[in-house]
Amino acid sequence: MDMPSPSPLAIAPDLAELARTLFEALRQADHDGTGITRETYGPGETRAMHRVAAIAHEAGLDCVWDTAGNLRVTLPGSDPALPAAATGSHLDSVPQGGNYDGAAGVIAGLLALLHAARLPRGPRTLHLFVMRGEESAWYGRPYLGSSALFGLFDPAWLQLQNLRDPALTLGAAMAREGADVEALAARRRLLDPASLSHFVELHIEQGPVMVARRVPVGLVSGIRGNHRHPQARALGEAAHSGAVPRWLRRDAVLGAADFAMRLDASWRTLLERGEDLVMTFGIFATDPREHAMTRVPGELRFTLEWRSESQATLDAFGELAASEAAEIARERGVRIELGQGVRTPPAAMDPRLLDHARAICTAAAMPHEVLASGAGHDAAIFANAGVPTAMVFVRNEHGSHNPREAMEFEDFLHGAAVLREILLTGAEVVGR
Amino acid sequence: MDMPSPSPLAIAPDLAELARTLFEALRQADHDGTGITRETYGPGETRAMHRVAAIAHEAGLDCVWDTAGNLRVTLPGSDPALPAAATGSHLDSVPQGGNYDGAAGVIAGLLALLHAARLPRGPRTLHLFVMRGEESAWYGRPYLGSSALFGLFDPAWLQLQNLRDPALTLGAAMAREGADVEALAARRRLLDPASLSHFVELHIEQGPVMVARRVPVGLVSGIRGNHRHPQARALGEAAHSGAVPRWLRRDAVLGAADFAMRLDASWRTLLERGEDLVMTFGIFATDPREHAMTRVPGELRFTLEWRSESQATLDAFGELAASEAAEIARERGVRIELGQGVRTPPAAMDPRLLDHARAICTAAAMPHEVLASGAGHDAAIFANAGVPTAMVFVRNEHGSHNPREAMEFEDFLHGAAVLREILLTGAEVVGR
Repeated sequence: MDMPSPSPLAIAPDLAELARTLFEALRQADHDGTGITRETYGPGETRAMHRVAAIAHEAGLDCVWDTAGNLRVTLPGSDPALPAAATGSHLDSVPQGGNYDGAAGVIAGLLALLHAARLPRGPRTLHLFVMRGEESAWYGRPYLGSSALFGLFDPAWLQLQNLRDPALTLGAAMAREGADVEALAARRRLLDPASLSHFVELHIEQGPVMVARRVPVGLVSGIRGNHRHPQARALGEAAHSGAVPRWLRRDAVLGAADFAMRLDASWRTLLERGEDLVMTFGIFATDPREHAMTRVPGELRFTLEWRSESQATLDAFGELAASEAAEIARERGVRIELGQGVRTPPAAMDPRLLDHARAICTAAAMPHEVLASGAGHDAAIFANAGVPTAMVFVRNEHGSHNPREAMEFEDFLHGAAVLREILLTGAEVVGR
Repeated sequence: MDMPSPSPLAIAPDLAELARTLFEALRQADHDGTGITRETYGPGETRAMHRVAAIAHEAGLDCVWDTAGNLRVTLPGSDPALPAAATGSHLDSVPQGGNYDGAAGVIAGLLALLHAARLPRGPRTLHLFVMRGEESAWYGRPYLGSSALFGLFDPAWLQLQNLRDPALTLGAAMAREGADVEALAARRRLLDPASLSHFVELHIEQGPVMVARRVPVGLVSGIRGNHRHPQARALGEAAHSGAVPRWLRRDAVLGAADFAMRLDASWRTLLERGEDLVMTFGIFATDPREHAMTRVPGELRFTLEWRSESQATLDAFGELAASEAAEIARERGVRIELGQGVRTPPAAMDPRLLDHARAICTAAAMPHEVLASGAGHDAAIFANAGVPTAMVFVRNEHGSHNPREAMEFEDFLHGAAVLREILLTGAEVVGR
């Protein structure tokens, strides 16, 4: 019998041990009794970043802090004219979150640079960006650090109040943690997209797909954009539940339920056609001030959000919703008002990098799955700035943003190896 | 050209004027600034009853107050062995209600007896029951006076607290207004159903059917019973709105909406088959403590009520609801729990009296419509006690239980004439 050949996606045992130790150190430092709390532009976030910088520095890598307080770890290549290959993620968490959302991407990127540092020096520079305030749960405005990299940090954000400590503005917190707030206010770009060949980010999956499919590694096809309607309503007419027959009713619950079912049917159809879409009525409620068991409901308030990798699908679903609403007004006398909408565009992942990533996994017989990212990531900021971008997901149970995140360390090592290969070899496939 | 013949359903002008004056006197006495308030077993209800008694007394009718404080007005017939024909309704209102709910039936009954008193004395005794506490909005337990007539007054009700004045019990209010509370506690029947040939009640319509159909007079086919589920739930699983695909969702809103749409479709089918049914999801709401725009909802609470004249339809719809719930559990992984149910049986109107009433209207070329009563009435107590019963509805806009009740006086006179004819001639068709 043939001996199995060593996997091309192996992680050196000492680097694996370093990753395990670093995860554990972060957990011990930032466990708040319930979950992990590393506040955006807070001391915990800064301390975690310094912990990464210390390891990088000891390994001979360059560490630079930018005006937004982001950390850039660099392994210089021999040809400074070549665009650099970049990876990165964030270290802030939501309050009482988990230990892996963000940190897994930073540690995987660190492993990739440490691995490359042991190889003969290559021509291309490698960067690890440890970015500030991706979650930004305390300020409500995400992607602070990556936005700053591309000159997208709006100076108005400096006035955002900390939701738990309104006396603290984001600007003050940033200054306290070492950002150069005045320089930032000038909205200067800190990073030229043309200076990068590509960007790749590793992240735990925040949904249940990979657990359900039993694959450790996910390759992201795109980051979903969304349309959101936070103040939608179904408006009918209140009436006596016993004395008004069906033909004289304008029942807001039945109108809204009909709307939900029509959109659900369209959703199913679009999925069958291979389109990417999720749709959620997160809030759906008659008015507690006037609803009653014996009253035909006159109003129901709801939220509606749909997400897709494809702008065309986002737009088409919106048109579909409008036409179904018109049907319901005609058929049931119930007016569906979606109200003001908020739109976030999708971020396309680079299809050449995606193909390349599939090839890497296939060559190593690594079970993997291509899937959309439902949540936003710093990678979307890079992609929308014009940098060819890829994302690697690691299987994770129970979602993220909660203390029950459950990533198997073996899965992390598989994902980190895939990330490393995309970082080291992706530039060629995008021709930069 | 032929002269139009005088309608057999005319009301004498002086009696019409008396009715108009009495409505106006009641309105002036009991208008609270917003609507009409005649509290159950309150001074306003008693005063209104005395106003009716005074008119009856002056016209030579007998007035008797029973141990429950109900007023019985009687025109004795020449043959005391014949069962008496009876009519009646109530004079209490809901807080800030209208002037016609209840009072219209009492005044119509009074007109019928006054009319009969002008005819040669007939063999059959006529009764008008002016009943206490039909609404009972202050105590939450309706049909107090009519229940007492048939020995159905539960002595435990005496302890019910007045919802606006918890120091006042129903028993104390009843005693204050002249009821013999101790006698009542013995649960003695005050009226033998066999002593009545039939009972007929006039009431304003509380729904919009007659306005929509443009008919002044409605003939009630039955009083709907109901099944109520005040604590129903749809139970799915909360999840991230962006990261969880359709096939892994157990969306409580979509499960509940599906349930509502399936029952709505069945409702439509049953109506097409000629069954009587109304169905209402009065409360339908995700949980404010945990719902959010970006969260697939894990739970939705709702109420479900359905009403029908037919016990078989009530039961069949319940079975249908259970089977649809099972389908939804299978198809969507959402559990529909209807929870504890409360059942009120329907009250059948006597079909011979209904046919008779139709014949009366047809002979007089009176536009009319046969319809179910969605709300309960004292007439249901008579019907369920075994008295052949009929109800006449009068067209009324804006429903009842609010100050905007809008009954045209002409419509009232049409209805009062139909009531009178059923009262005077209905005994023959039921053979009592």
